[in-house]
Amino acid sequence: MTNGKLILVRHGQSVWNESNQFTGWVDVDLTEKGIQEGINAGRLLKDNDVLPDVVYTSLLRRAISTANIALDACDRHWIPVIRNWRLNERHYGKLQGLNKAEIRDQFGEEQFMTWRRSYGTPPPEIAADDQYSQVGDPRYFNLPQVPLTECLQDVVERFVPYFTDNILPRAMKGEKVMVAAHGNSLRALVKYLDGISDDDIAGLNIPTGMPLVYEIAADGSVVNPGGTYLDPEAAAAGAAAVANQGQK
Amino acid sequence: MTNGKLILVRHGQSVWNESNQFTGWVDVDLTEKGIQEGINAGRLLKDNDVLPDVVYTSLLRRAISTANIALDACDRHWIPVIRNWRLNERHYGKLQGLNKAEIRDQFGEEQFMTWRRSYGTPPPEIAADDQYSQVGDPRYFNLPQVPLTECLQDVVERFVPYFTDNILPRAMKGEKVMVAAHGNSLRALVKYLDGISDDDIAGLNIPTGMPLVYEIAADGSVVNPGGTYLDPEAAAAGAAAVANQGQK
Repeated sequence: MTNGKLILVRHGQSVWNESNQFTGWVDVDLTEKGIQEGINAGRLLKDNDVLPDVVYTSLLRRAISTANIALDACDRHWIPVIRNWRLNERHYGKLQGLNKAEIRDQFGEEQFMTWRRSYGTPPPEIAADDQYSQVGDPRYFNLPQVPLTECLQDVVERFVPYFTDNILPRAMKGEKVMVAAHGNSLRALVKYLDGISDDDIAGLNIPTGMPLVYEIAADGSVVNPGGTYLDPEAAAAGAAAVANQGQK
Repeated sequence: MTNGKLILVRHGQSVWNESNQFTGWVDVDLTEKGIQEGINAGRLLKDNDVLPDVVYTSLLRRAISTANIALDACDRHWIPVIRNWRLNERHYGKLQGLNKAEIRDQFGEEQFMTWRRSYGTPPPEIAADDQYSQVGDPRYFNLPQVPLTECLQDVVERFVPYFTDNILPRAMKGEKVMVAAHGNSLRALVKYLDGISDDDIAGLNIPTGMPLVYEIAADGSVVNPGGTYLDPEAAAAGAAAVANQGQK
């Protein structure tokens, strides 16, 4: 049997990526650049003959649209789709909607980086009735409680069990599984796949719209630790740009 | 319990709708007008508060894209999606890719209308290696045999059992189920829902991009026979345009 593949794709640039705002669970749209990144991701999949058999997405428009656009571009628009909130971006709590550079100026570099990158410290909770809260959003009606904030550890704890129960077994059977998700839900996944420590994960940045492929053996192990970007040069430049967010 | 709903949406105008070619299983794209029809369908769903809980699509791009566009326009892009070949358009056999007006001129009005609208007579089979055949298309790998032609009866026989097993039970439980499909697969469905005879179904035309809503009681019966178009005037004009296809 040939090995399966996990194809991780972070959504293309969103309106709030462009305006440098913390997004989290706020359901903003792609920019024109983000749409182009989705098309480019699909072309990379086609050119490298990495054609997904099934796609998992979050419940957020920017990941859903990126998947739709990329799959259309590689003629795999017809594959099965599964959506789940467990793939959502990290909930950024009270920071949702706020400008990253302003937060950095107001609270200082250390606090800013703690909120952005610490593994176990979430930002302050958002008020349930804040305009950027998701309490009451019908798509989350089946959650016991809609998050008011999350740290990366929370994302690992909600996403990895879903991944090992539902997504990984498909790759172990030889399927090519696309995961269209977000900067932090994909960081949570890469942390698990590559066994990255709670401290070291702070230094990992995932670029938008760049397919990152992990080859998975039948026993679930990763054949190519760290994964393989289909366009390594563009991915490195994209990751550096993510690392520099919050600089003016 | 409130009644469930079936929301039938025929894809917006496709490139071959515009150029007046028989399409069938050929996977052509939407035109700009077709994209606008998808957006309009989504707005009608939103304005009438008929928001789908789940969507079923065919495996063809024009229906998939129409669903994506309409759901995005009514903020239901995040609902579960199920795709199945049984919702596909009727396979038009050897006519796939040919111009409707030319076929009408060449074979005469009677033969033309027999191929377009007779219940039990399929067009001649397409050659398996024709450029417009779907034999070998990976999306149909699980079919015992890819069709080489179909009449409407064939569509009824492949689609209605899937509908009664999978789609109708959801509506009976009170869900609002969107079905994004095609002129003839939706005609097959309406024939079943409204108990239309094999002869009378020839006169039924379904316009592109116009949501047609059937209210379904808990026992599976239709509360509003004939269904309700959310924009009845535009739907009537659209149905008349479909009826006149093949006229130059």
